[in-house]
Amino acid sequence: MISVTLLGAGNVATHLFKAFNASKKTTVNQWFNRNINAIHQYKNQVKITDNLNTLEKADVYIIAVSDNAISKISSSLPFNDRLVVHTSGSVNIHDLDKKHKRGVFYPLQSFSKTAKLNFKDVPICIETIDKKDYSILKEIATDLGSPVKKVNSDQRRILHLAAVFVNNFTNQLYRVAHEITESEAAEFDLLKPLILETAKKVQDISPYMAQTGPAKRNDTKTIKKHLALLNKNQHKAIYKLLTQSIQDTHGGKKL
Amino acid sequence: MISVTLLGAGNVATHLFKAFNASKKTTVNQWFNRNINAIHQYKNQVKITDNLNTLEKADVYIIAVSDNAISKISSSLPFNDRLVVHTSGSVNIHDLDKKHKRGVFYPLQSFSKTAKLNFKDVPICIETIDKKDYSILKEIATDLGSPVKKVNSDQRRILHLAAVFVNNFTNQLYRVAHEITESEAAEFDLLKPLILETAKKVQDISPYMAQTGPAKRNDTKTIKKHLALLNKNQHKAIYKLLTQSIQDTHGGKKL
Ligand SMILES: NC(=O)c1ccc[n+]([C@@H]2O[C@H](COP(=O)([O-])OP(=O)(O)OC[C@H]3O[C@@H](n4cnc5c(N)ncnc54)[C@H](OP(=O)(O)O)[C@@H]3O)[C@@H](O)[C@H]2O)c1
Ligand SMILES: NC(=O)c1ccc[n+]([C@@H]2O[C@H](COP(=O)([O-])OP(=O)(O)OC[C@H]3O[C@@H](n4cnc5c(N)ncnc54)[C@H](OP(=O)(O)O)[C@@H]3O)[C@@H](O)[C@H]2O)c1
Repeated sequence: MISVTLLGAGNVATHLFKAFNASKKTTVNQWFNRNINAIHQYKNQVKITDNLNTLEKADVYIIAVSDNAISKISSSLPFNDRLVVHTSGSVNIHDLDKKHKRGVFYPLQSFSKTAKLNFKDVPICIETIDKKDYSILKEIATDLGSPVKKVNSDQRRILHLAAVFVNNFTNQLYRVAHEITESEAAEFDLLKPLILETAKKVQDISPYMAQTGPAKRNDTKTIKKHLALLNKNQHKAIYKLLTQSIQDTHGGKKL
Repeated sequence: MISVTLLGAGNVATHLFKAFNASKKTTVNQWFNRNINAIHQYKNQVKITDNLNTLEKADVYIIAVSDNAISKISSSLPFNDRLVVHTSGSVNIHDLDKKHKRGVFYPLQSFSKTAKLNFKDVPICIETIDKKDYSILKEIATDLGSPVKKVNSDQRRILHLAAVFVNNFTNQLYRVAHEITESEAAEFDLLKPLILETAKKVQDISPYMAQTGPAKRNDTKTIKKHLALLNKNQHKAIYKLLTQSIQDTHGGKKL
């Protein structure tokens, strides 16, 4: 058994707790949160604590707290030379106190406490300062059922940035579609199968190959009609910029 | 049995042919294309023709040709007072020749000849000039297994515009993510589960509720880091505009 100590009780820590609990080779030995109420309900399943000084020996300490608290909490740990990792896409591995053996265990997914997630759909990006520490992190990630990838800090921050495009920005395009359909009493629900199909398509073919539509075809008549239909200047600006981006990608003409 | 004649042999017509062929109550009686070679392979399953003057009587004529050819082909049909519909999201119902009983049968999905599609994931938006013609269109759409929705021309063109946001523009964000990950030798593939999860999330909750990330949190430190990481000015512009849009939606501060 590999023993893990979790620090933090947010979206990521909670999903990790449940998944490790259901896993075969990994056990969560202890769970720390500064506010113990957040983990009180798990007290029969795991030792809970709000005091860093009570932390016991474990094979891996996973710090899953807010990005800006990672560095401080890693320094406050009352031991050294043990393997301590964080779960952030954007925090440098060197932000962990150098008294520890250090690593990153970044789950590339969007977690929320309510939505269920299967860890086979959560690629884990692993980085370690010392090569020797890689295998144990790989082992616990594999034990979760996750695909595992060795990713250095430069790659990880790029992946985190790219995740903002495919997650937050894409979601905002859905939001804009919601706004414009509502404004004409059309149903956003009708777009849901298309939203899913668009995401499915790029599982198999590249986004480049998957592109279609008036921008790619340089169908200026439709583009003009669409711009006239949009009421908000910001929606027009998004339409123009992404149309231009598609045309640049596909070697089309300027708007 | 309801008899249908298909006109055109592109993505939509081909999918419709196969789906009607597998359906219970609808049969494709005849299939027209100006270039008969495109449908030659189906000649044992359906009467094929490239001559509008040979068109036989059918309950519904479905014109699934390029948008700019719909009007002309509807005028060239050598009969009147029969039910003629087109499948376009952006063409007005009045672009069909008024000698016909007119309708629209708009499948709100992204079709490509190769990708398989189940028509349960293809909402059909129906419009008719005469109320009496609605039920037969609803019947054949239901026979395909599709959700059916009565949608007027204003709503349809808004849905078509919204479809550009959730399909073409979203796909371009995937493309940008592909470009920036490749530029750092990071793997775009690692983003695929997140792409799918982002689309799945809004099947159940609104895009407004689903939003997360640095823009919504107004995490200016991360936003600045991300902008510095982007090399292309166009990528920076997309990042800024969509961040601003998220902040406007969620009542956040200006960049
Ligand atoms: N959410 C995602 O989709 C996602 C995906 C990949 C990676 N990550 C990364 O995973 C980490 C955790 O994210 P999350 O979404 O789980 O966060 P979250 O839900 O916001 O929870 C934050 C946790 O950090 C604790 N915390 C905050 N400030 C602290 C401090 N100064 N000292 C001690 N604990 C503190 C909070 O404790 P209290 O309960 O006492 O407030 C809470 O348990 C972050 O590094 C994030 O970048 C998140
Ligand atoms: N593709 C989609 O995802 C989608 C989704 C919803 C609605 N629609 C609508 O469905 C319709 C068809 O789209 P599609 O994607 O199937 O098109 P497509 O694959 O590009 O095929 C176009 C078809 O139209 C025919 N055509 C073009 N110009 C013609 C003319 N002047 N006279 C006669 N036939 C002509 C072509 O004949 P040849 O074979 O001889 O070239 C071809 O069979 C359009 O109104 C489109 O807006 C498409």
